[in-house]
Amino acid sequence: MSDEIAKGLEGVLVAESELSDIDGDAGRLVYRGYTIEDLAREATYEEVLYLLWYGRLPTREELSEFEASMAAERSIDDSVVKAIRLLVEAGEEPMAALRTGVSMLSAFEEESDADPSDVEAARRKARRITAKMPTVLAAFERLRTGADAIMPREDLGHAANFLYMLSGEEPGEVAAETFDMALTLHADHGLNASTFTAMTVSSTLADIYASVTAGIGALSGPLHGGANQDVMEMLVELDDSDMGPVEWVEAARAEDRRIPGWGHRVYNVMDPRARILKEKAKELGEASGDTKWYEYTSAIEHHLREEVGLTEKNIAPNVDFYSGSVYYQLGIPIDLYTPIFAVSRVGGWVAHVLEYQSDNRLIRPRGRYTGPERREFVPIDER
Amino acid sequence: MSDEIAKGLEGVLVAESELSDIDGDAGRLVYRGYTIEDLAREATYEEVLYLLWYGRLPTREELSEFEASMAAERSIDDSVVKAIRLLVEAGEEPMAALRTGVSMLSAFEEESDADPSDVEAARRKARRITAKMPTVLAAFERLRTGADAIMPREDLGHAANFLYMLSGEEPGEVAAETFDMALTLHADHGLNASTFTAMTVSSTLADIYASVTAGIGALSGPLHGGANQDVMEMLVELDDSDMGPVEWVEAARAEDRRIPGWGHRVYNVMDPRARILKEKAKELGEASGDTKWYEYTSAIEHHLREEVGLTEKNIAPNVDFYSGSVYYQLGIPIDLYTPIFAVSRVGGWVAHVLEYQSDNRLIRPRGRYTGPERREFVPIDER
Repeated sequence: MSDEIAKGLEGVLVAESELSDIDGDAGRLVYRGYTIEDLAREATYEEVLYLLWYGRLPTREELSEFEASMAAERSIDDSVVKAIRLLVEAGEEPMAALRTGVSMLSAFEEESDADPSDVEAARRKARRITAKMPTVLAAFERLRTGADAIMPREDLGHAANFLYMLSGEEPGEVAAETFDMALTLHADHGLNASTFTAMTVSSTLADIYASVTAGIGALSGPLHGGANQDVMEMLVELDDSDMGPVEWVEAARAEDRRIPGWGHRVYNVMDPRARILKEKAKELGEASGDTKWYEYTSAIEHHLREEVGLTEKNIAPNVDFYSGSVYYQLGIPIDLYTPIFAVSRVGGWVAHVLEYQSDNRLIRPRGRYTGPERREFVPIDER
Repeated sequence: MSDEIAKGLEGVLVAESELSDIDGDAGRLVYRGYTIEDLAREATYEEVLYLLWYGRLPTREELSEFEASMAAERSIDDSVVKAIRLLVEAGEEPMAALRTGVSMLSAFEEESDADPSDVEAARRKARRITAKMPTVLAAFERLRTGADAIMPREDLGHAANFLYMLSGEEPGEVAAETFDMALTLHADHGLNASTFTAMTVSSTLADIYASVTAGIGALSGPLHGGANQDVMEMLVELDDSDMGPVEWVEAARAEDRRIPGWGHRVYNVMDPRARILKEKAKELGEASGDTKWYEYTSAIEHHLREEVGLTEKNIAPNVDFYSGSVYYQLGIPIDLYTPIFAVSRVGGWVAHVLEYQSDNRLIRPRGRYTGPERREFVPIDER
């Protein structure tokens, strides 16, 4: 047992996991052995969920059954919509509203009395949470724009149904596929802070609603999920300025502003998810005839890599650098990007929680006490 | 960097902390150098909060000001009461209702736009959360019994006001002091799972509402905060049986039932908090003329220690073993014991979050990948 402080637990191994493997030097990410490139291009988000939760890719029949079970669980109780309306009226921000909305879902869980160590019940609960999260988020978005919440459709995939609940219109194939791909890319990523938070909560044998609610909280931080929104806000600010992208970035750097979407604790090269999203951002721009956002990001990337020399420092674009402009081109409001990250990552949270529960051990580290030695208590009037 | 898995992070040092020190062999607990015995007997919960949050015991004037600032923040928005009513109607259990209610409080936070690294703003937010948590819990209890929620009084201390909001009657001095003492005893305890969860969430620079909500989730687990309720349920079951305590325990052990409230990862001897509560349970019993609960617990303790030999195995009663019968004698419903633990422990969560933020590092451990090596993707119709 080391006497050193493992600050941030950097490099500390806390569990074995068969879920995802990151090679930070090669820029490689796999889910259960399948490369993220293959999964992003060839599999749907539901297939990926099945892979993460059940350990292998489904057959056509298994997938159909799984999709149907997810679709059947999408609707949320009217009381949850009422509570979301209260949050909207109070001006709550989306990520906090999602946290409260998901926390509230447990009140309507039919298996709330299941034994905490019943992994199959936890898996069913997790499926319900995952199915309902887009509905909670879309209802919040609709209500805050003064529209009515749109109830889910069972005949659409997970990604397409979310876009439908946001706009009221069935999305086109490219939009649905792009969004589905983004969900796959964000579904799992080792023991990141939100996943580890969900595992720590569930290590007490708390209910999975508690774990997911906690995961949303952790993901909301700007050092974790918040950066995709920051990137897009930067691009909009750049677009509103009179400057070109390189000039703007240099001005920002001169003011010591951090450029969001760069660097990652576990990658020394470009995040493979960023590579895929970069390609997608380009495609979307070319399809719509407006490649502006793609050009901004790629010009900034080139400048920071080659001229500022970040590549030499092993700092490269991460997933957040290119997801923003993809979502923007899908017409999604900027402050929903982090909640969408949660709508995807819940798949990974659940997978890690279920995996850890199969050989659970309460997560309880130690602190080194550096406070005063024993002190004599002095009554208040003698202080 | 060790290649071993630090399962449960047992013994792993993740931070320095001046807040609390546990000597598991001596059965000693201090908050910032003051013994838990001194604090439980001599200081109020508000004094202890001040000590944890500001680093030293307050003067009379500082304490008055602090108490007034806490008391002024107790009320909750009508919308939160409405949401709690929705939870009650859905049959939500208390710990989950507290989690959702506290999560919702962020919608009414006046400083929600404060920079996440602004520690003073976080401290004010934390004070508001801590002040409002008893109000959320008491409103839930009132509404589920068909009564109206009772708004807080500013002229009562934190402990007395909670008991007042539960019953509508100003508590007697002994009840208020006992409850205040219980709050002090549970306020902090090193890097336990819920505290560590709150720290992990805030290490992403997420808002303190996210941290506290996550902490409540972690505390809800039966391996963490849930055991105090389990102890009381055991005592009630024993009381309803025809057996004496020793006979009952032996029957339970013969059925391989775990006796709750025994053993603790960090104590090899009796938890000092349990010693204090044991004494209090005896006093309360003698004052009311009904020492039954005290007798049950002390008979079980004697039997397990001396006859079963748990003392030799370094297994002793923990804080949960004696807190239940104290709360029971104060007339508090059994399923509020764990939420009450949260109402107290929020003081420690906040203190650790503020302390960690002063030298923050994202908490992100690693997992060891044990899944398949690179696998070829097989299209769904070929599986």
